[in-house]
Amino acid sequence: MDIKQYMQTCRQWADAGLEQVFARYQPAEARLHEAMKYSVFNGGKRIRPMLVRAACEALGGTARAALPGACAVELIHAYSLIHDDLPAMDDDDLRRGQPTCHKAFDEATAILAGDALQSLAFEVLANPELTGRDERQGTCQLQQVAVLAQAAGNHGMAAGQSLDMQGTGNTLTLAELETLHRHKTGALIEASVTLGALSAGMSDPETIAPLKCYARAIGLAFQVQDDILDVTANTATLGKQQGADISHGKNTYVSLLGLDTAREKAILLQNEALQSLKDLDGNAVPLRMLAEYIVSRNH
Amino acid sequence: MDIKQYMQTCRQWADAGLEQVFARYQPAEARLHEAMKYSVFNGGKRIRPMLVRAACEALGGTARAALPGACAVELIHAYSLIHDDLPAMDDDDLRRGQPTCHKAFDEATAILAGDALQSLAFEVLANPELTGRDERQGTCQLQQVAVLAQAAGNHGMAAGQSLDMQGTGNTLTLAELETLHRHKTGALIEASVTLGALSAGMSDPETIAPLKCYARAIGLAFQVQDDILDVTANTATLGKQQGADISHGKNTYVSLLGLDTAREKAILLQNEALQSLKDLDGNAVPLRMLAEYIVSRNH
Repeated sequence: MDIKQYMQTCRQWADAGLEQVFARYQPAEARLHEAMKYSVFNGGKRIRPMLVRAACEALGGTARAALPGACAVELIHAYSLIHDDLPAMDDDDLRRGQPTCHKAFDEATAILAGDALQSLAFEVLANPELTGRDERQGTCQLQQVAVLAQAAGNHGMAAGQSLDMQGTGNTLTLAELETLHRHKTGALIEASVTLGALSAGMSDPETIAPLKCYARAIGLAFQVQDDILDVTANTATLGKQQGADISHGKNTYVSLLGLDTAREKAILLQNEALQSLKDLDGNAVPLRMLAEYIVSRNH
Repeated sequence: MDIKQYMQTCRQWADAGLEQVFARYQPAEARLHEAMKYSVFNGGKRIRPMLVRAACEALGGTARAALPGACAVELIHAYSLIHDDLPAMDDDDLRRGQPTCHKAFDEATAILAGDALQSLAFEVLANPELTGRDERQGTCQLQQVAVLAQAAGNHGMAAGQSLDMQGTGNTLTLAELETLHRHKTGALIEASVTLGALSAGMSDPETIAPLKCYARAIGLAFQVQDDILDVTANTATLGKQQGADISHGKNTYVSLLGLDTAREKAILLQNEALQSLKDLDGNAVPLRMLAEYIVSRNH
């Protein structure tokens, strides 16, 4: 299996799980429900669900066991994109080539859709049967709640977005930029592999440590590559305005390091990620392929 | 003990728990952390934490066991007020006599503070030691996560706020107004008593049913009384602009029923609440006093 096949498999699997979550209930409020679905099913690559599954499988767990964690982390990611796009934040009109949630609906609905997606993420972790799964063994559900909550909140993603808002228009040091990304995107990527490990019933910190190391490296590599693509890819391939970060006054690895050094950094991080998996067996192949993909992708 | 004493005790107890939650961590991002604290510690009456505790005590549980659920529900409530006040929602400048979060900070910080408070609520349920409590027995933590998530999200509070946004400026029927409030405020009040029961280790639906019945009645009574106060109390007592709901084009029980019928409705709901507690013993006294307070309060 190559990485493209694995990604497609994971994407269909995550989409099916998310469809289940939305199919379970009669919506209490149709417009809000539509806005939530619009934002969740808009062609996302499902990188985080794939990480949950790949980490679970790397430790001998099943895809089935990984599904609630995979859906939960994607719901958090979807909520964060809605809120990041709002006029008071990045004020973006396009996301993956489609109107952003507040453009397709309205600002109040977009705020609430994000809020409700966050609640739904925790509901899914507490009620894994929402994803169509009925076994609960070895999934360390309560620890999953703690991990996801911490990664999403004021010690993780929300803090990163706040640092991003304050840093925009000011020149950051490389260390400050790294702190920003470790919170803004890194925390949720690290949480994804931890959720995967917990799904496999593995909660021992020593077992999880190499996976976290891997996640920290690919999380930064992903961001460096994003910054590279922001200046090298065209708008149609990206699904958003080329050069948008630069024109928003965002600090990027390319603006601080230059394109060549940014490319070297991405490769170094990829090697660091691969190195941290050295003691894992063949079950970790998808994680390895993913580290290579992140740095070679063109969108 | 009278209701004023009990409320004061509960308020100090909830504030101490919330202080613990915020004291635990070195903030990753100072401005966000400040905005969160600003919004949580702004003189709230802590009605929901009191309900968690009173329901837990009514079923023989301890205040200590009720603290994580009490803090969690108040964090959700605080987040909802920040987002409700945003320019895209109710666009309010004052909350409890103080500038609203987006006025005291800025809109992006207010959105993120709300987001992070929601995450923190679930973190507290998963890690009750955040509130300074170290025992976990009989608190049905995972069920608490499910209950709170469902009450907050697109089957509860967020749906209610969305209905409120869409109803503003249109005349609703009484049934529509009731659906709105059952979601917008009722869901979290009902969740509060369920969290209390679960904190006491009681998860049997038959044990919880009368408490839910009670909560549904006082939740509506609370809203009816709010609508009455909106037109009868003055701005200084309310801590917000008198007549604000009417001038915002909101449907209220007073605008639909008139003041006298709204007052009768509040009394009927109070009686319904008291009636649903009839099989509970003396431990339910605080719940009874609270039902009486809700309808007699002047702010």
